[in-house]
Amino acid sequence: MSTTDVCLDKLENYISAARSRYEKELKELVDIAGVSMDPERKPQIEATAKYAKSLLEAHGAKAEILPTRGNPVVVGEYFADKKYPTVAVYNHLDVQPADPDKWKSPPFDMKIEADRYLGRGTTDDKGPALAVLYGAKFASENKFPINIKFIWELEEEIGSPSFEEFLKKNIDRLRCDSVVISDTVWISKDKPAMPYGLRGLQACMIRLKTGGKNVHSGEVGGLARNPIADLCDLIAKCHDARTGEVKIPGFYDGMKKATDEELDSFVASGFSLAHYRQAHELNLLRTEDDREGADRIWTRPTFEVHGITGGYQGPGVKTIVPFEAEAKVSMRLVPDQDPLHVLDCLKKFVKEILPEAEIEAEGALKPFVSHYKDDYSQAGAEACRLTFGVEPAFIREGGSIGAVVSMKEALDVPMVFLGLSLPEHGYHAINENFDWGQAEGGMKLFSHYFKLLSEIKK
Amino acid sequence: MSTTDVCLDKLENYISAARSRYEKELKELVDIAGVSMDPERKPQIEATAKYAKSLLEAHGAKAEILPTRGNPVVVGEYFADKKYPTVAVYNHLDVQPADPDKWKSPPFDMKIEADRYLGRGTTDDKGPALAVLYGAKFASENKFPINIKFIWELEEEIGSPSFEEFLKKNIDRLRCDSVVISDTVWISKDKPAMPYGLRGLQACMIRLKTGGKNVHSGEVGGLARNPIADLCDLIAKCHDARTGEVKIPGFYDGMKKATDEELDSFVASGFSLAHYRQAHELNLLRTEDDREGADRIWTRPTFEVHGITGGYQGPGVKTIVPFEAEAKVSMRLVPDQDPLHVLDCLKKFVKEILPEAEIEAEGALKPFVSHYKDDYSQAGAEACRLTFGVEPAFIREGGSIGAVVSMKEALDVPMVFLGLSLPEHGYHAINENFDWGQAEGGMKLFSHYFKLLSEIKK
Repeated sequence: MSTTDVCLDKLENYISAARSRYEKELKELVDIAGVSMDPERKPQIEATAKYAKSLLEAHGAKAEILPTRGNPVVVGEYFADKKYPTVAVYNHLDVQPADPDKWKSPPFDMKIEADRYLGRGTTDDKGPALAVLYGAKFASENKFPINIKFIWELEEEIGSPSFEEFLKKNIDRLRCDSVVISDTVWISKDKPAMPYGLRGLQACMIRLKTGGKNVHSGEVGGLARNPIADLCDLIAKCHDARTGEVKIPGFYDGMKKATDEELDSFVASGFSLAHYRQAHELNLLRTEDDREGADRIWTRPTFEVHGITGGYQGPGVKTIVPFEAEAKVSMRLVPDQDPLHVLDCLKKFVKEILPEAEIEAEGALKPFVSHYKDDYSQAGAEACRLTFGVEPAFIREGGSIGAVVSMKEALDVPMVFLGLSLPEHGYHAINENFDWGQAEGGMKLFSHYFKLLSEIKK
Repeated sequence: MSTTDVCLDKLENYISAARSRYEKELKELVDIAGVSMDPERKPQIEATAKYAKSLLEAHGAKAEILPTRGNPVVVGEYFADKKYPTVAVYNHLDVQPADPDKWKSPPFDMKIEADRYLGRGTTDDKGPALAVLYGAKFASENKFPINIKFIWELEEEIGSPSFEEFLKKNIDRLRCDSVVISDTVWISKDKPAMPYGLRGLQACMIRLKTGGKNVHSGEVGGLARNPIADLCDLIAKCHDARTGEVKIPGFYDGMKKATDEELDSFVASGFSLAHYRQAHELNLLRTEDDREGADRIWTRPTFEVHGITGGYQGPGVKTIVPFEAEAKVSMRLVPDQDPLHVLDCLKKFVKEILPEAEIEAEGALKPFVSHYKDDYSQAGAEACRLTFGVEPAFIREGGSIGAVVSMKEALDVPMVFLGLSLPEHGYHAINENFDWGQAEGGMKLFSHYFKLLSEIKK
């Protein structure tokens, strides 16, 4: 029998007492607009690091800001004894951009509406990071026989370009017996998910310049090449917009299809297009079949266009022939596709179809897949049962967390995903939010998890 | 022998004396940002009309602002005697939008740099309108036996949606023996052009909405339809971006190819891709052949995409699946394509390829073609010879002036094009400009032209 049981009352009291402080700290954290994608927000990234360090210290952990060639990483630790097992918790504190005009409340001025927290970063990933900290503090205060390290990154949203180097440089202080990542999304409010795989990513910008200025289409239309039309043609040739099928030769090299067992398990997890459609406000999907839907987001690669800049963006139609355009594209990848190979295939294809275009590669992230039958994953599942009274779903995750592959390679220990976000929390979307129910659940979940981990024989 | 000769000295003196006043008035006119495409600039449109009326009156013409259901039209007249012939001069005083960030000087604060006037509307079409007025004033002051009417429109840049109705309502006061339009571009600084045809236009916005908000591509990528990708596919299917060939069934119905005589004449006009490429700052053209080049811009129809809105437009790559996108497209048309038929073909095609998309049609303009061997065109050519010492090139114009077809239909008189703009003046482009050389030449050209018209037997 787990010794966790003895602490249950104490845990409930601890959490009830923690709420107002949690909310105050979350607001202070969310109100610092640490958008890693925006070079002008560098000061807010620095401020986030400082605040995070003080937060760890205020909760009794040791903490330090470690520089990298990019944004710093904040590390911390509750150290108990070197004879105990050590777990490293990974979260990130940088956030996506947010256009205030489109939000119902200011994205960087967190509002509390009853149990709900509104603001950029509340669910991705500040709210979960803080919930984990509270769980870890409980473990520390109650002298669970475990050491808990914190790795709080500030470049996750730009593909963790400095993280691999950071790991190499600091490998000795980061050694641990397992890693737990809290940056993923549940199936639904009633069904926790424990992903055991992530899609990879290769993003890039494809640019075409055909002249020096926008010109009147009455004067040059028909004769001048149109860079937007050329990029549309290229995008249409790279993939089938209706089916999503990628047509770049070599793109699928190395790809392993999901097994029937996995697909069965995805459907059994309770994944349903009806709920999914509603949570993400989607009208047009590429399939109406739950099984195929799950396959599409978790175990198939994509070609995606995120925006085309250039030309006229104002009201009405301004009849110009644009002189430059940029397509922002990315490809989500699944095991064992290789981002470098995929980028190479794209470059070759573009060279053939539209040789005048230039490609600028953005961060590459390898796909990741593990298994879920080991002791660490099973400890996570048991913590879910103890906390929420339900079995978690073992699924894959359609997003990418660049740091995970780097940690797996550098630390070579089991990696467990215990996220706290819900589909309706609006990951990367407007009106991002988190809620007390998930924060409270997260504190409990991690308290249980740390206890269970402490009982795994090294 | 033309009686024009007697006035030559007087004309030179008149023009020399006119320069500072011309520049003052042009600046006052350019500084009023009458952008017809922007609903927020309605007050500036009204201010332009008021200023234009006062300008005509200050130069001794009668003037009136005539309302329409859209923007008003300013009309004026130098009346001599009803036994004399009457010419109506058409110009427009509304302008294209201008993004100040991209201009080297503020677009709505005209700067004079030596002989050059920098500002939005200087060449399209305020500078020419004012030069014509000065020519007409000379004709009036010197008692040329001709009546000169002015039609100054304020909706040309949005396809003249109220102009046909305006003509019908005011047909009696607008009657004339010919119309001269000054809103076209020369071949080069040394080669005046007298177009005898215009391309038509059918513009529209194609919109697709696939959801309620932008969503993280890690969460929905592969499953959610991507509206930008769908529009790219549609655009690629509507036309061949490389060759420009339009693939919409029925699009070319009624189209008359340019005759060999016309194409010979285009090349003989001095049209050269080398000069054209430089004037418009173009690197990538769809042909390197002068003859084909002229054909492409003057006598072939187009499908053009002016911009795709939606998705992420900021720096870097933000991995969202957009939920809505809009393609701003237009089709330039040549005789005898019918805008309504072409729109119908596009709608049918879109319904087949992308049934979820919505099409909103913008102004439709019929193509126009006339001839150039009549007395009025020949008077224009003689005025060119007298003023500039060169033969004008009879070409077609690749742009569209909606009012021309309406005037032809309502007034049923010869239509002559005597533009004053040069390719390097940047029609619809950044850093639009005009220059004293063309203004001065225009004053002379129109003085001669009015004199020659007065001698044509009714």
